[in-house]
Amino acid sequence: MSFSTLSEFATVLASAPHPDADARAAAQARNAQLTKPAGSLGRLEEIAIWYAAWRGEARPEVAAPQVIIFAGNHGITARGVSAFPAEVTVQMVANFEHGGAAINQLSRAAGANMSVHAIDLDRPTADFTEGPAMDEVDCVAALKTGWDAVDPEADLLVVGEMGIGNTTSAAAIANALYGGEAAAWVGRGTGVSDAGLKIKEDVVRAGVARHAGKDALGILAALGGRELAAMAGAIARARALRIPVILDGFICTAAAATLEAAQAGALDHCIAGHQSDEAAHRRLLAALGKEPLVALGLRLGEGSGAALTIPLVRAAVECLSGMATFAEAGVAAAG
Amino acid sequence: MSFSTLSEFATVLASAPHPDADARAAAQARNAQLTKPAGSLGRLEEIAIWYAAWRGEARPEVAAPQVIIFAGNHGITARGVSAFPAEVTVQMVANFEHGGAAINQLSRAAGANMSVHAIDLDRPTADFTEGPAMDEVDCVAALKTGWDAVDPEADLLVVGEMGIGNTTSAAAIANALYGGEAAAWVGRGTGVSDAGLKIKEDVVRAGVARHAGKDALGILAALGGRELAAMAGAIARARALRIPVILDGFICTAAAATLEAAQAGALDHCIAGHQSDEAAHRRLLAALGKEPLVALGLRLGEGSGAALTIPLVRAAVECLSGMATFAEAGVAAAG
Repeated sequence: MSFSTLSEFATVLASAPHPDADARAAAQARNAQLTKPAGSLGRLEEIAIWYAAWRGEARPEVAAPQVIIFAGNHGITARGVSAFPAEVTVQMVANFEHGGAAINQLSRAAGANMSVHAIDLDRPTADFTEGPAMDEVDCVAALKTGWDAVDPEADLLVVGEMGIGNTTSAAAIANALYGGEAAAWVGRGTGVSDAGLKIKEDVVRAGVARHAGKDALGILAALGGRELAAMAGAIARARALRIPVILDGFICTAAAATLEAAQAGALDHCIAGHQSDEAAHRRLLAALGKEPLVALGLRLGEGSGAALTIPLVRAAVECLSGMATFAEAGVAAAG
Repeated sequence: MSFSTLSEFATVLASAPHPDADARAAAQARNAQLTKPAGSLGRLEEIAIWYAAWRGEARPEVAAPQVIIFAGNHGITARGVSAFPAEVTVQMVANFEHGGAAINQLSRAAGANMSVHAIDLDRPTADFTEGPAMDEVDCVAALKTGWDAVDPEADLLVVGEMGIGNTTSAAAIANALYGGEAAAWVGRGTGVSDAGLKIKEDVVRAGVARHAGKDALGILAALGGRELAAMAGAIARARALRIPVILDGFICTAAAATLEAAQAGALDHCIAGHQSDEAAHRRLLAALGKEPLVALGLRLGEGSGAALTIPLVRAAVECLSGMATFAEAGVAAAG
């Protein structure tokens, strides 16, 4: 399976595999016999069965989680949409490579293999209020970077990002996909001032107006960034490989939403890990029908919120696969 | 430090240690310099600083979490308050010992050392509608079982329980401590019928009326059970050893609440892990001013909800202790 245009990528999405109905039924049957009152593990049961169906195994395990961070630079930073200078993107990439960022600690704590892909940091995307952020060639190249970054041996995927200015990009994508006022999709990101917030709104409004009428993948190219397209490519590849995905915060979810808009059901292999402190993230998850596992006030990006929840997914799967049945344990069921 | 009466145990609570102000200040100062926007790790920052203060270290680690399960039997099961027969308590203890229960999988997944203490299962507590569930000697013995079960080398503690009928005991304790209608503190536990629910309410109302006017530890003895008293003893011991505790669901929290009622601040070393599906648990946590880390619909007990959140606390601590500072990483701070 390969693609060299956005149209071919859409075809890839349309021909993606579906969960295994037999594995789901077997996992459900097993879950019903485990030594616990029916339903008493709450959402852990639903997560484990979802995971089993995607992996095609009634008793799966989470043995090889992968965390991939994509970094990109954004032409719109020149407008003053961020509290941080654009140089921070490359500085943080070095920090990821040296193990000093939050996502390094969270990946290690979760037993996940982490890698970083800095994509053309010396070549920021264009200012999307003046033209498309990426042309089709650039967008396809970034999608492929994401596609190729997924380890076929991984069994759970988190994709994260670093890119000063990219909450503005994410807000523009969400606004273009779902409509409404620009202000409803714009937040403080990593901590922009009141004046910066007003600029973000104006930039989003102008970008959405400029690129009105484009389809979902056209919106990704016109308003996104290389790291957003790469996340979308990685999420699509995970689907092709039947690797379940935990979505991160607002930026990751906005990138993912372009896949769902291009092909309904494209995110069925994804769950929402963490609901970020950006109000627009709650709105976006609601639009996608995804209920986050936790909401602990993070607003960092880097895949941090999703990586934090890898152990919750693993715990759910371990209960399904490792618990004894009532018959095995000689425990009486409910009277 | 030792105790042989409830009054002496109250003295132990009153002389418990407090968090280390210097370690807290050092952790706060370090947190402010880490390579992330200020506050962007949300509640993880607060948890890490709380943990550092209790451990007395600016850069602590979670290396030896301990999970202890206490089991007890309840005279009130004869009233028909549970969907499961009382024999299930001893059957589930065997299941814990053979590694087949949910808490075994969750403890292993969290890297925690787990142990089980079955307390006099052949000697159920008395029916608390007819007299105290435990006399003072029995209650003190159970407190000591919990006290002695804590490993002084542990650095994070979860206590859980198994005891058919013990949501009724927990509801009676909460009602006695906080007042209101019995119905507000009674739920379906592991899945009791409508008729069983009505019986639970009647039993709670009768028990609370019978033992009106007792002090907090008197309530624990009169309405509790051996596993509840043991959890209270373990939580008190953890405080004496400066080991932070993650509270589990309704039954664990009710046991813990007797400590807070006996000595304000006695649960300052505890955070709430999981908010269970029992509505009374939400009410109880609110009364204690504790905000749960997650709410995933579990209603199992066994320490399962708390064990599930051990990796979240570890992740918070790893970020504080492992991240690079802006100066170390050469990253520009916010402009």
